[in-house]
Amino acid sequence: MSSIGIVTPQTMHFAQALLLQSGATLHDYMLMFETYGTLNAAKSNAVLVCHALNASHHVAGVYADQPKNVGWWDNMVGPGKPLDTDKFFVIGVNNLGSCFGSTGPMHHNPATGKPYGAAFPVVTVEDWVVAQARLADALGIVQFAAVMGGSLGGMQALAWSIMFPERLRHCVVIASTAKLSAQNIAFNDVARQAILSDPDYRGGDFYAHGVVPKNGLRVARMVGHITYLSNDDMAEKFGRKLRDAAQTGDYKFGFGIDFEIESYLRYQGDKFSEYFDANTYLLITKALDYFDPARAHGGDLAAALAQTRAKFFLASFSTDWRFSPERSREIVQALVSNRRQVTYAEIDAPHGHDAFLLEDARYMNMVRAYYEQVWEESAALPHQTISAQQGSKEYA
Amino acid sequence: MSSIGIVTPQTMHFAQALLLQSGATLHDYMLMFETYGTLNAAKSNAVLVCHALNASHHVAGVYADQPKNVGWWDNMVGPGKPLDTDKFFVIGVNNLGSCFGSTGPMHHNPATGKPYGAAFPVVTVEDWVVAQARLADALGIVQFAAVMGGSLGGMQALAWSIMFPERLRHCVVIASTAKLSAQNIAFNDVARQAILSDPDYRGGDFYAHGVVPKNGLRVARMVGHITYLSNDDMAEKFGRKLRDAAQTGDYKFGFGIDFEIESYLRYQGDKFSEYFDANTYLLITKALDYFDPARAHGGDLAAALAQTRAKFFLASFSTDWRFSPERSREIVQALVSNRRQVTYAEIDAPHGHDAFLLEDARYMNMVRAYYEQVWEESAALPHQTISAQQGSKEYA
Repeated sequence: MSSIGIVTPQTMHFAQALLLQSGATLHDYMLMFETYGTLNAAKSNAVLVCHALNASHHVAGVYADQPKNVGWWDNMVGPGKPLDTDKFFVIGVNNLGSCFGSTGPMHHNPATGKPYGAAFPVVTVEDWVVAQARLADALGIVQFAAVMGGSLGGMQALAWSIMFPERLRHCVVIASTAKLSAQNIAFNDVARQAILSDPDYRGGDFYAHGVVPKNGLRVARMVGHITYLSNDDMAEKFGRKLRDAAQTGDYKFGFGIDFEIESYLRYQGDKFSEYFDANTYLLITKALDYFDPARAHGGDLAAALAQTRAKFFLASFSTDWRFSPERSREIVQALVSNRRQVTYAEIDAPHGHDAFLLEDARYMNMVRAYYEQVWEESAALPHQTISAQQGSKEYA
Repeated sequence: MSSIGIVTPQTMHFAQALLLQSGATLHDYMLMFETYGTLNAAKSNAVLVCHALNASHHVAGVYADQPKNVGWWDNMVGPGKPLDTDKFFVIGVNNLGSCFGSTGPMHHNPATGKPYGAAFPVVTVEDWVVAQARLADALGIVQFAAVMGGSLGGMQALAWSIMFPERLRHCVVIASTAKLSAQNIAFNDVARQAILSDPDYRGGDFYAHGVVPKNGLRVARMVGHITYLSNDDMAEKFGRKLRDAAQTGDYKFGFGIDFEIESYLRYQGDKFSEYFDANTYLLITKALDYFDPARAHGGDLAAALAQTRAKFFLASFSTDWRFSPERSREIVQALVSNRRQVTYAEIDAPHGHDAFLLEDARYMNMVRAYYEQVWEESAALPHQTISAQQGSKEYA
């Protein structure tokens, strides 16, 4: 149940061309977003929530015509929730290249008159942040109280702190990393290869052929999903339980489903392949792979974070083997070496990477306590710290 | 370089039908095998080496016409090697359902006159062991000095100790487990789904269509390969190195290859899809999933191992996350609770699951020392402990 109730997504069109990190240009584009709570007169209570791989601008609440379509972080965002919409004005934005409304591969490519398909330019975390900053400009938000995200969303929050240091007072990075490992990239490439080699992918132009590379998407999601769950959690939930054990008590000696874990994973894969866009999957895994702010500083993360000005909250989960606590500790270390103020919580939770989306009293209470601090600080904030002049700074 | 030199594979035809665990019957079949060293007069110095997923009977040496085709455990088996063929008579057998010569899916199905394809019956570790036992019978080997294997091969060694307790004096189980975890099964099912959903799989009858489900095999191998390497090893060997960094120094902003790890994995996948059979891959992953000797004893591994009579050597590797040291410790625990004699080595090695195939002085020296003991014990063995009568025992 959502406590925020019915919400309505909005769109904003941007006519100003966006030069991407790749060198390509999006001549114009649209962003889909949602807001929750009320922007105060000083416009000082805004929090941007950045989404991860398969999520969207729909962070909290439900739609009038889709009462079961609850936002992906509804347990985190809402009245009385850890990120309290009675206090904060929260924004969720669908990122460029995604498949939930913002300009992406299934949209009209003005250069060809057909859907972009695989011609949609590769976008990076930094490109998303620039697009989000323009949305903030349009909404008159010069400085966010916080920018927040989990996993790939955490990368965006971190990029904000580097690219627009004066535009956020707090940076909240959950279950994330400053760069993917070789193993992370390897899993992403397996997923991409599954999609690219599906004959129904048709070089990315499957829209025109009325097909969808479902088999590829399904395998991609299955392998991804394994990395979101902890080994222990899988053992606990599924172990070696047979799906139809009650009926037969024996193996089926075929290539159908024997074990519950197979049934669960295939179901997850099937469901995903029904709603997610294959080109978006490729784009988002590449954005993950490419993120590495230390790269421009010879691999020195502390140097990359030297220009940050925000205060930081980081959290990681003990059984997360996708982005393990060690990866968060690297960020904490680099921030501390820059004498930034950092709060870091390493939470002993059984649910692997997915833990960042799940209920866990200790985790939720820590985020709640942090936002209470942010709120008290905001209340004491002199109005002049937020000047319109800072808003016009564009990232070069 | 192989120190054993040129070897010649042999075949043996079995006219006696083999009733499989699934209830299906192989009416007749052929096994391909190799032997190294000399069987002594007492036939007491034989060691059976069982192979894992993608290996075969070709354990050591090279072929006269293929001087580069070195056996998969050539560093372990040969004159003066840890398993010393100057002392022991070593046998490698290709398992049923494999694609390296023993009867398998690409062979003629007498029931249809066409290749078996997906109609080849699902075979289990226990089925393989029965077939291996028949080969031993035919060779006049009533009792092995040792049965040995790594990974899936270790499962076969363990099954030998349970099914034919009097037919092996030593059981050598490296980097293995008494059962797959939910996560292990999940990875196997991703691989299977990649193959089954490749249109070129053609329901398993791709032989007749002159195609091979290469894309599916490739993705299957890529995901499998990730689980064979340790996270640390991948980080060390590949990290975030770009393949063409010397030339461009930058990302490619496309879906081709950016990182060395992508290049490496795709190469491994491509190579594998050139020589491995898709139906065999499905069969062997199922054999892995199904192995669970404790299952018939309500999950009690100690009960399953109560009937063993062999002495045991187990080894595991610290960075193996496919079959972690904990999984070997479970077996050790269950054996110790049965008061079996167990030597267990937990080796701190960086190379993940693959470590069992690689050079590592500590590992090799431990196996060497163990086989020296086996040898000394064999020399002191009273001849009558090996009676022909025991050889005729068939597993029911």
